[in-house]
Amino acid sequence: MVRPRSVAVIGASDDPTRIGGRPIAYMQRQGFAGAIWPVNPKRDTVQGLSAYAAPADLPEAPDTAIIAVPGSAALDAVEQLGARGCRTAICFTAGFSEVDEAGARAQEALVAAARRHGMRLLGPNCLGLFNQAVGFYPMFSTSFEQGWPIPGTIGIASQSGAYGTHLFALARARGLGTPVCVTTGNEADVSLGEVIGWMAQSEEVQVICAYAEGIRESDRFIAALDLARRNRKPIVLMKVGRSALGTAAAQSHTASIAGDDAVTQAVLDEFGVVRARTTEEMLDIAYAATRRIYPARNTLGVLTVSGGAGVLISDAAEQIGLPMPEMPADAQARLKQLVSFSATRNPVDCTAQALNDMAIVGRFAEETAASGGYASILAFFTQVGGSTTAAPKLKRELAAVRAAHPDRLWVLSVIAPPENIRGYEEDGFIVFEDPSRAVVALDAMGRFGDAFARAAAPAALVALPQVTLPAATPTEAEAKRILAEAGVPAVPEAACADVEAAVAAAKRIGFPVVAKILSPDILHKSEIGGVLLDLGDEAAVRAGFATLLARAAERAPGARIEGVLIAKQIKGAVEIAFGVLRDPVFGPVAMVGLGGVFIEVLKDVAFRRCPFDATEAERLIRSLRGFPLLDGARGRARADVPALARALSNLSGFAAAAGERLLSVDVNPVLVLPEGQGCFAADAVIEVETR
Amino acid sequence: MVRPRSVAVIGASDDPTRIGGRPIAYMQRQGFAGAIWPVNPKRDTVQGLSAYAAPADLPEAPDTAIIAVPGSAALDAVEQLGARGCRTAICFTAGFSEVDEAGARAQEALVAAARRHGMRLLGPNCLGLFNQAVGFYPMFSTSFEQGWPIPGTIGIASQSGAYGTHLFALARARGLGTPVCVTTGNEADVSLGEVIGWMAQSEEVQVICAYAEGIRESDRFIAALDLARRNRKPIVLMKVGRSALGTAAAQSHTASIAGDDAVTQAVLDEFGVVRARTTEEMLDIAYAATRRIYPARNTLGVLTVSGGAGVLISDAAEQIGLPMPEMPADAQARLKQLVSFSATRNPVDCTAQALNDMAIVGRFAEETAASGGYASILAFFTQVGGSTTAAPKLKRELAAVRAAHPDRLWVLSVIAPPENIRGYEEDGFIVFEDPSRAVVALDAMGRFGDAFARAAAPAALVALPQVTLPAATPTEAEAKRILAEAGVPAVPEAACADVEAAVAAAKRIGFPVVAKILSPDILHKSEIGGVLLDLGDEAAVRAGFATLLARAAERAPGARIEGVLIAKQIKGAVEIAFGVLRDPVFGPVAMVGLGGVFIEVLKDVAFRRCPFDATEAERLIRSLRGFPLLDGARGRARADVPALARALSNLSGFAAAAGERLLSVDVNPVLVLPEGQGCFAADAVIEVETR
Repeated sequence: MVRPRSVAVIGASDDPTRIGGRPIAYMQRQGFAGAIWPVNPKRDTVQGLSAYAAPADLPEAPDTAIIAVPGSAALDAVEQLGARGCRTAICFTAGFSEVDEAGARAQEALVAAARRHGMRLLGPNCLGLFNQAVGFYPMFSTSFEQGWPIPGTIGIASQSGAYGTHLFALARARGLGTPVCVTTGNEADVSLGEVIGWMAQSEEVQVICAYAEGIRESDRFIAALDLARRNRKPIVLMKVGRSALGTAAAQSHTASIAGDDAVTQAVLDEFGVVRARTTEEMLDIAYAATRRIYPARNTLGVLTVSGGAGVLISDAAEQIGLPMPEMPADAQARLKQLVSFSATRNPVDCTAQALNDMAIVGRFAEETAASGGYASILAFFTQVGGSTTAAPKLKRELAAVRAAHPDRLWVLSVIAPPENIRGYEEDGFIVFEDPSRAVVALDAMGRFGDAFARAAAPAALVALPQVTLPAATPTEAEAKRILAEAGVPAVPEAACADVEAAVAAAKRIGFPVVAKILSPDILHKSEIGGVLLDLGDEAAVRAGFATLLARAAERAPGARIEGVLIAKQIKGAVEIAFGVLRDPVFGPVAMVGLGGVFIEVLKDVAFRRCPFDATEAERLIRSLRGFPLLDGARGRARADVPALARALSNLSGFAAAAGERLLSVDVNPVLVLPEGQGCFAADAVIEVETR
Repeated sequence: MVRPRSVAVIGASDDPTRIGGRPIAYMQRQGFAGAIWPVNPKRDTVQGLSAYAAPADLPEAPDTAIIAVPGSAALDAVEQLGARGCRTAICFTAGFSEVDEAGARAQEALVAAARRHGMRLLGPNCLGLFNQAVGFYPMFSTSFEQGWPIPGTIGIASQSGAYGTHLFALARARGLGTPVCVTTGNEADVSLGEVIGWMAQSEEVQVICAYAEGIRESDRFIAALDLARRNRKPIVLMKVGRSALGTAAAQSHTASIAGDDAVTQAVLDEFGVVRARTTEEMLDIAYAATRRIYPARNTLGVLTVSGGAGVLISDAAEQIGLPMPEMPADAQARLKQLVSFSATRNPVDCTAQALNDMAIVGRFAEETAASGGYASILAFFTQVGGSTTAAPKLKRELAAVRAAHPDRLWVLSVIAPPENIRGYEEDGFIVFEDPSRAVVALDAMGRFGDAFARAAAPAALVALPQVTLPAATPTEAEAKRILAEAGVPAVPEAACADVEAAVAAAKRIGFPVVAKILSPDILHKSEIGGVLLDLGDEAAVRAGFATLLARAAERAPGARIEGVLIAKQIKGAVEIAFGVLRDPVFGPVAMVGLGGVFIEVLKDVAFRRCPFDATEAERLIRSLRGFPLLDGARGRARADVPALARALSNLSGFAAAAGERLLSVDVNPVLVLPEGQGCFAADAVIEVETR
């Protein structure tokens, strides 16, 4: 479909400005190497090419076909193309699921026909695609009126035709090559995930820019993200509908399943997909990515001629979380010797004075790269980079240092005429006028690098437990038992009918324990003194058992007494909540958050697709804003985060193994004790589909 | 200094590329209308102008002078210029407080000399200024090699010369006019605040772009912000050093007092100064501001040809908090009749189909403006705006609608050649390629509008109390008494020696009350049953008094008993903390935050310069992320926010009246009861400078 030897155009028009005419005109103008076979029963020729009355008349089965006929004629076209042996088609025709229920049914019929013929379908209601390298333009966009795509390595995969071509036009204006663009429209068959997957293994595309309103199917999407990551191809995604307002707009716009944005974000994080906040940011990141340098554990060194710009860059780096380690002391001393007024920590400010002797700038750059050891280096030279007198010398100095350290990501922030910019780019620099935008792009390169490194050293496979769900939603006690079996421990406790059982239970659970009177008739145990804390040894348990029975006899004379509940005494615990929900697209997704206001008021929650290992679970826990509470804030002891991470990972394995009948799990609170003492579910609800 | 009739150049150079030569060359080239008097004892002429040996030889007292001599000669120049009657000077000379202690002392001498002569001084260590309208270029920047400032209305006030000219160059590249730029360097005399204040009342400048690393003096700065707001001149500020990293970099860079960024932010919020996150954002906002339409209570209507772009814009608007109300139902019905597939809520998506009939686009635009009533309208037409066939018709339709609604802020998001952009701008549109950037700029216009509206209806003056601070830091009880007098009530309580006093106190405080045994010998009152809750009437107080005395007699027989403490019983309170700190630049600043994790872990705190009224106090309280806790979250009753706001406002008045000896106030916790029941300080510390 993307690189065919022949293309049929069903509904071909002689008018090069009509939908059925534009692709033919574009392909002829851009020298498409394959055969173009217009199909139009009313004409002998179309735009100078021999026309055919119907697919049956084509000289042979075309590799692909453009369907540009209106409404119900599309179904006919699929049937006839299928019968002629065509195995792929690009369907411009609109009026399907994006309109109403009847349209949705017509779309189902269209896909059914294609499937019958073993035919893959792009669209319907799509703008088409282009492949610049072979002059293939099955697309009816007017964008090409302003210019053609230029060679390069950035692929565009977009659910929206308007957005895809908007992006291509912006890229072209910036001199960025987007050789391939595929728009998926209604995604009746070919989905965004499949397009990304194709790009992930194609030679044409090294950097993937994608636009999504909603992910319709998770398997291909996830497989594509995984493949792209393994092939070290970065994906920058514009996923709209992140706000409530945006989601409402997306739903009124298309029939796409918007899904929960937080869950989608978790999937993107898992595979190192960087989400662009704006289109400009998407192109900034894609541009930087074309250098194909993706440092894991990224660090930033800043070389500047303006102290103020250095501060501004430091602010931006800190805000986005890109570390700027200090220069080594000996290197700082050497730089101070060169320019006594210079700032040498990082930012390294050689000051405007150094510009009088460009060799000094070279020395500063070399120290920053060699001694600083930064993976990314941002050099701020503002208008000096475009100065007719200073720029040539600056260019020579910087190019020499860059050539000596080609493994680094070198970014220049300059204001200069386009020809100077091109010169710096030819020297291997990325060039941004605005240093803040450069910082965002550099940070993204590090995030790609980290993700690629994770893919190279994959996590241990999570061993899934054997899970047999009950026939209906279980009681709290049963839910806790099920989770405990799966490795999510509950607060240890035991109902003890006599004192020997109580002593044995306490020894098993470990001292100190809590003892509570056990009676169906005593609802408020503490009112009769029916709860004893801090029983520290066997003797205390024996005495306590007697005390509770005596108090019950005295203060609740008629009550039936079943014995005493012995439970682990939980002290100094931090309250956590975790659970599992079933996302309509991505299946079971675990969530974790700190209890109380953190979840309820601040929505401070992290998500992850199930299953995942304890390392990943710990990363999730550490990503919470409230994490300091687990880490010794407010004078607390540090909590047993490893135990919590194990329990959360075990929960994720349970959810993955439980199958589709598991609707949700809610464990709240989870009591996390100080380091080495574990964590325990104090309450649990498991919701299952009743069999 | 900014518009002189004559300028002397001390250290004038015949070489137009040297620091002492550039200003002369620039002024000659740009046709400075005033007299240029080079001062150079070694030459008869400088760049074709008659030179003078010394200031004493000048034909008359110059309106201003450029000091471009090195080091200690600057002091001499000031003395001689002062003696000659010159009353302002622009001092390029470096090597002062930015270097070391000796430099700081030299700078003090320089200022002292200027003061003696009644001379105002810009710098030292500054790049100078320019005033394009009169061709006045006392600036040694190399920026002008790439082009001259163009006429316009944006003024640049910058502490950094490099940043100021960087900004001017970027503005010029975007076609934005920056007729005035003043860089303040070390600010030994003229400060950034004074420059902003001048711009706030100048005719040349309508929009102010400022760059600050630290604010050195608050009075002029605040007066300038206030004046600019009253004169409806928006200020966009790049204030670097917002991060810890940035602050460190700023401190290693200059001697400026960085101050607490959160306090600075509070001052900016107070006056509606919009803080730019990036330089690009600063210019985006300044560009939009040149239309001089600043809607209070801003709303956004979006007209689009791409559903996807509509969602993207909705996301951006929600993220920044710019409301997008829905279109009225009748207008939506009319639009649906025009284009049945259109989305009509807002975003209003006329779809690419409508482009076949541009009159439809006009109708959609008219409905959006007239029926939607939005203050700001963003129209997304991507490449259609640059299409050779479609753009002229689009331009006509949009221009007609805009002309019918000239009071709105109209923004076009298009990809088009520069000449098309200029055409749209001439029609009165702001044009942004990237719609996300447009949303940020539009939101800023609304924030300016709100601030200007606040200035037009100023808050009632806060009546300051009479405050007499104690000679030394007071005890907790004394601190509470002082604050209660100032209108920050403490939990009502009274020490009662006998039962009649207890009854009277309980009646005064209001039932229910708490009673506690009062004895210097009983530290843990609850251990002897010395605390009684929920005393609901007189009889209960009488009985309780007797009970407490009996228990004390029985369980703590030797203890000296002073009576009983009767206190208001606080139930269902939300814990708040508020206080005052003394900022080195801005003086007493109040802070408020929710207790516990909100302050300690999340740093969820709001600041405001003292004093302020209760309306402003409530705005502060509502700005807290944890505010839902006061507003009925988690099943609580709503808290008495008005009472809390009054107490906070009263605290701010106390702090403003207390004078410089007040170092800090810390009221923590403040217990806020349900609506109508007030709030009470439960603990308070007032720190004063010992007299």
